[in-house]
This record gives sequence, structure tokens and C-alpha cells, in this order.
Amino acid sequence: MIRRYDWQKLAQYCAGLFTAAGVSREHADIIAESLVQADLRGIDSHGVVRADIYLKRLEAGMMNADGQMFARTTGTVTLLDGNNNPGAVVGTRALELALEGARRNGSAVVGVKRSNHFGTCAYYLLKAVQRDTIMIIMSNASQTMPPTGGLRPFIGTNPLAVGVPAGRRLPFILDMATSVVARGKIIVAAQKGESIPPGWAIDKYGNPTTDANAALEGSVLPMAGAKGYGISLFIDLLCGVLTGAGFGRYVNNMYENWDEPQNVGHMFIAFDIGKFMPTELFKERVDRYIEEIKAEPRAPGVSEILIPGELEHRKTLERKSRGIALPASVETELQGWGERFGLDLSSALLEESPYSR
Amino acid sequence: MIRRYDWQKLAQYCAGLFTAAGVSREHADIIAESLVQADLRGIDSHGVVRADIYLKRLEAGMMNADGQMFARTTGTVTLLDGNNNPGAVVGTRALELALEGARRNGSAVVGVKRSNHFGTCAYYLLKAVQRDTIMIIMSNASQTMPPTGGLRPFIGTNPLAVGVPAGRRLPFILDMATSVVARGKIIVAAQKGESIPPGWAIDKYGNPTTDANAALEGSVLPMAGAKGYGISLFIDLLCGVLTGAGFGRYVNNMYENWDEPQNVGHMFIAFDIGKFMPTELFKERVDRYIEEIKAEPRAPGVSEILIPGELEHRKTLERKSRGIALPASVETELQGWGERFGLDLSSALLEESPYSR
Ligand SMILES: NC(=O)c1ccc[n+]([C@@H]2O[C@H](COP(=O)([O-])OP(=O)(O)OC[C@H]3O[C@@H](n4cnc5c(N)ncnc54)[C@H](O)[C@@H]3O)[C@@H](O)[C@H]2O)c1
Ligand SMILES: NC(=O)c1ccc[n+]([C@@H]2O[C@H](COP(=O)([O-])OP(=O)(O)OC[C@H]3O[C@@H](n4cnc5c(N)ncnc54)[C@H](O)[C@@H]3O)[C@@H](O)[C@H]2O)c1
Repeated sequence: MIRRYDWQKLAQYCAGLFTAAGVSREHADIIAESLVQADLRGIDSHGVVRADIYLKRLEAGMMNADGQMFARTTGTVTLLDGNNNPGAVVGTRALELALEGARRNGSAVVGVKRSNHFGTCAYYLLKAVQRDTIMIIMSNASQTMPPTGGLRPFIGTNPLAVGVPAGRRLPFILDMATSVVARGKIIVAAQKGESIPPGWAIDKYGNPTTDANAALEGSVLPMAGAKGYGISLFIDLLCGVLTGAGFGRYVNNMYENWDEPQNVGHMFIAFDIGKFMPTELFKERVDRYIEEIKAEPRAPGVSEILIPGELEHRKTLERKSRGIALPASVETELQGWGERFGLDLSSALLEESPYSR
Repeated sequence: MIRRYDWQKLAQYCAGLFTAAGVSREHADIIAESLVQADLRGIDSHGVVRADIYLKRLEAGMMNADGQMFARTTGTVTLLDGNNNPGAVVGTRALELALEGARRNGSAVVGVKRSNHFGTCAYYLLKAVQRDTIMIIMSNASQTMPPTGGLRPFIGTNPLAVGVPAGRRLPFILDMATSVVARGKIIVAAQKGESIPPGWAIDKYGNPTTDANAALEGSVLPMAGAKGYGISLFIDLLCGVLTGAGFGRYVNNMYENWDEPQNVGHMFIAFDIGKFMPTELFKERVDRYIEEIKAEPRAPGVSEILIPGELEHRKTLERKSRGIALPASVETELQGWGERFGLDLSSALLEESPYSR
């Protein structure tokens, strides 16, 4: 029988682990919310599966539990020094600065250095669209993809994400790795002992592979050939080179490097819709666009044309009511931390009710 | 024997055609420069092959030869009404506004409506990087790609482009269609009577095709599946929906619609490097990045790892010295306009010298 967890209780449980590891209650809630939201949205690779490594890095002193952050604004550009806090905490501060800046000036750019893995970009986008703000978010990541023509990882699967509010319709939430797939999906496949489809990755000798473990030793490939390589590279130039963060080989791998902080960089670009046109008019135009595209004739066998973010929204509704199932390895990890910190994972199980099925 | 044209004389010739069609000398030079630069860079699909359609639209009153443009700035956001001028003229004004805005505020956003096809984005990026400015440029385009799961064109091959200055090294110039390939490459193949590789396009019934003409009647596919569809869609949301320009089916096809202007929209986002870190330090970091990536071990059979823009730079040097060869159909079109306007295309031929080979 598969155990299912209640998303709110699971978030509470994880937040409990982070506070026990020295993070303030407010920041622990942010990290836990970002992880559980990823599970709700079906992005299991960025869900509570990551709690273990975050806790290990906090414990090893590779991540600050509650460091002071520093922000400096010149005109419309804000530089945020994350001071090696957990990525979700740094990202949330960057989001707030970008929202404030856009409200004040129409648009704002927040460059971030000395951060860590910050989860999914959608976590921040969903908050931005609620504030009638269009947001572009990018992050660099440690080396997992070869450049086009290269043999071994040099660039990250640097995500590119854009959120756009709608009116009646769901917001547009595009949140994607610049790889054929997120490396996290290969990690999940490896943990589940499953193989991966051809075309996702090469092994360490440069040969195509469907073995998830061999792929993790080798490289996941950029999407769209040289175009994906180019997009990943410019994300690193903006997030890493321009902000003063690490870039290329200087973004440390959170699983492998135990000598130094990750020094991840992010970039948040915000647009206040009202400075372009009346917000209500904009939302009507977005609704019209979405309705027109969804009404298009479909290719044989296709039941629906989707807007980015729609699948994840449906998954969220489903998992909020049916609960979140976790791989046994993740349950064991979370349970282990709970035992150390005096918390019980089974307290987060979904209480079955006849209505929740 | 293939005839080869001198890039400067060819630009002069084309500018002559545009002035004869009512465009001011200054603006005619901009349009001609943007077209010939595309030919120099090997982007033949966006070169002087487009002069004919631009001239036809000017003559048909579908494009303004010299309309007043209007710009309104609120904080860091500028909205430019291109007043249906040629795209390269509108794009150049947007570029100037974005450069000025970034110099003043650190970053700037310029949204453009009522524009036309503006050629390659690299044309503007190359000017931006010379001014120590990082620039992101996007444009929407008329319907050529189906959404994922769709049967017929609904979104454009909306280009995404980013320019980043370097120090000793060539600048990073990523300039790409969000399709597997630019539709212009299929047009060129059709004009040359060549077939196209599988995977580039579907025919009008939704079947894969290698016939360039069938592909032009059908749809070119987005790059990277749903990810490319999502990127193309957000470009349209920013360039079309947010600026007040056309979007989706409301961006008119310049070859097919003779009742209305195109109403293309663009978005220029500029970052003044000096507001992030000392410009020289930034350039050193970019140089280091480029040198490190180029020194990476290569996959079997690969002679060099390239940076976006590098191939086009080499092609430019080659074509500046060896001349530009044009398909016979393009020569015929250009010659035809010349006869009407009293200009002689052969005046633009490269004078052979023993040193130019
Ligand atoms: N923090 C980091 O370092 C890091 C690195 C890489 C990835 N990530 C995260 O990994 C997550 C997963 O990335 P991914 O690329 O595997 O996601 P994905 O491929 O599952 O989805 C990418 C996007 O495409 C959309 N989409 C998918 N199918 C669609 C369809 N048929 N029609 C319309 N839209 C469709 C989704 O809604 C989503 O916005 C993201 O949340 C990303 O932020 C984070
Ligand atoms: N104005 C419009 O409406 C419109 C619409 C679509 C496309 N376009 C233009 O079409 C042009 C062509 O687009 P495309 O997508 O066919 O270009 P492309 O596929 O030839 O190149 C895309 C980018 O990838 C880079 N690149 C290619 N191979 C590489 C490698 N091995 N290593 C590193 N980088 C590499 C190139 O330098 C370029 O920056 C662009 O200039 C674009 O602006 C314009």
C-alpha cells in the first residue's frame, strides 16, 4: 500500500527539520513551502527529495542557516548578496526586491550572487503573477551539460522561467530546464531504478545511454542542440558572470563539493503591467489569446492544447486532495532526520476520508 | 560562373531602391545595412532576399516610407509606436531608446508596437555590445508554427536574441528563431528547389515532410517540443500582448496580407554593465569563460567548440573579402526594381583582384 502525505502537514514536518537545523521559523517555512509546492505540481525532482541535501549542507556548514543578506540598488538595478543562505530564502528576497522595484519604476532587474539551489522558478513566478507582475527568472546551476561539441559537463541545466498573469484563465507559468529534461528527473529515475529514454543524456565517454546511473556520471544534453547550449550559456553570463556569482566550473555541485559554498547566481526581471497598458485590458488580451489557442484544431490523437503551467496546476489540485506519495528512499531520509530531531514523519500522513478519494 | 557582389556596393544599391520608393536616405541606409549584414553573416534567409517584399509593401501602401514615430517613457519603461515604418528603422529607434535608458537607469525596457519584420536581431545586438551594453531582443512574427498538439500555424518563429560584450574575445551573439530552423531557410530551400531534412516541418495535414513547398504550406515545428512552443508563446505575450501590437493571428503575414499593416511587436531589454560591476572586470570574466569553454575536451570528430556568433563572424570576414553570391531569383528581383528606378545591379559586382581570392 502506498502511503500518501498531506501537503500542509508535510510542509510543517519539513519546516520543523529546517528549524531544528538552525533556520528561523520564517525561512524554514519558505524552504518547506517551495519543496512541497514542487511535489504538488508534479515536479518530484525538486520536491522534498531535496530536503536531505539541504539539511546535510546546513549541518556541514556549507550553507548559512540565517545569514544577513545585503542589497545595493543603483537606479533600476539591484544586486543582492545572498550570503550563502538557502536558495529559496535568497530567491524570495530577490522576488520582493524585484516586485518593489517594478512597482516603483515600471521594470526592475535583480541580480543575485552567493546563493544556493533555489528549487523551482515557478515558486516565485506564482507569487509574482498574483501581484500583476510579469516576471522572467533565470538561475545558473552546477555543471551538468556539455557545450555543443563537448564531451563532459561544463554548463548547468540553467532554468529559464516566465510568468504572465491572466484574467479568467490560469496564469501562464513557463518553467523549464535548458536541458532535454531536468537532471533531477534522471536522479529520480536512478533512485527508482528505472531507465531513461534515448536522447536524454550521454555517458562519460560521450556515448548515448539509457542507463540513469551512467547518465548521472555522464551528461544530460542541452535541448534543441546548439540553441539550448546558447540559451544556457547566456543564462550563466547573466546570472553568474554579471552578478559576481560563480559561473561555469565555479558553481559548486551541492552533492559533491564539501569544501565551499555553491555560489549560485540568479536573475529576476520584473515588468509592472500597468506601466504598459491598463492591467484589466492586458488580462483580457491574455485570456483571448489563451482561448483562441486552445480552440485551435488538434493533431490526430491530441485531446487538448495546453498552456505552460496548466498540467502542473491540475496535478496540484489532484495532489492536494489525494495526497503526495514519496519514494521509499525519500521517506527513509526524512524519517532519519525526524528521528534525530524528535519529529515523526507519520504525523504528516493524509488522513483518509471517504471524500478525499 | 557565380557572380559575387561587393557588400558595400550592394548596400548602396539596395539603399538606392529604398530611397526611390520614398524612404529617407538615412532610413534607407539602415534597412540596406541590416539586409546586407545578414547576407554577410550567412543568414541568407534574412538578407537582400527580403528587399523585394519590403519594396512591394512600401509601394502597396502597406508600410510607411517615412512616418513619424511616437515614444512615451514612464519610469524605465518606454513604449514606442513604430507607426508602420520599416522594421529595421523602428528597431533602430528602439535600440537607441534602450541604450539611452540603460545608461540613465541601469536597465531599460522598450516595448514596440505597429512595427514590421525587422530582419535579424543580431543587427541591433552588434551595435549594443559596442556600447558595453547587454541586450535581450525579442520579436513576434506572423503565424508559422503550431502550438504543441496543434495542426496548423498559430504562433510565429518568434526570435530570441542576446548580446553580451567580451574583452579580447568576440562578443557573444545568440540570435535564434524558436523553430527547429528559421522559416526563411525553408523559403530559401524552396527557391533553390532543394528538399529539407526530416523533423523541420509538417505539411498542412499534420504529416512530417521533407518537401520545402509542402512545408511552406504547412508549418515549421517549434524547437525542443513544448519548451520551444512555450518560449515562442511568452515572446508573443511580451512583444504582442503587452505592447499593444498584434499577437497570434493578429500579426499579419507580409507575403499574404495586402489589406493591413503587419503590426509586429518587439521587446528590447538593456543592461548597463557598469551598474553591476566594473566593465573591464566583467569583460575579463567573459573572456575567461569563453577561453575555458573553448579549451574543453571535444566529442570524437569535433574540431572546435564554438560560441554563439562565432560562425557568423567568420562568414562575415569571408564574404567581405570574397563577395556575396545571390540566388538567380533574387538577382532577377533586384535587377527588376533597378530597371524601374534607373539603377544597375551590375554596378554592385565585386571587382576581382588577385588579392581578394
Ligand atoms: N534550481 C535549479 O538549479 C534548476 C535547474 C534545472 C531545472 N530546475 C527546475 O526543474 C523543473 C522542471 O523543468 P523541466 O524542464 O523538466 O520541466 P518540464 O519539461 O516538465 O516542463 C517545462 C515547461 O513546459 C510546460 N509544458 C510541458 N508540456 C506542455 C504542453 N504539452 N503544452 C504546453 N506546455 C507544456 C510546463 O508547464 C513547463 O512550464 C522546473 O521547475 C525548473 O525550475 C531547477
Ligand atoms: N524578424 C523575424 O521575424 C525573424 C523570425 C525568425 C528568425 N529570424 C532571424 O533568423 C535568423 C536565423 O535564426 P536561426 O535560428 O535559423 O539561426 P541558427 O540556427 O543558424 O543559429 C542560432 C544561433 O546558434 C548559434 N550557433 C549555431 N551553431 C552553433 C554551435 N555549433 N555552437 C555555438 N553556437 C552555435 C548561432 O551563432 C546563432 O546565434 C536569426 O538572425 C533571427 O533573428 C527573424
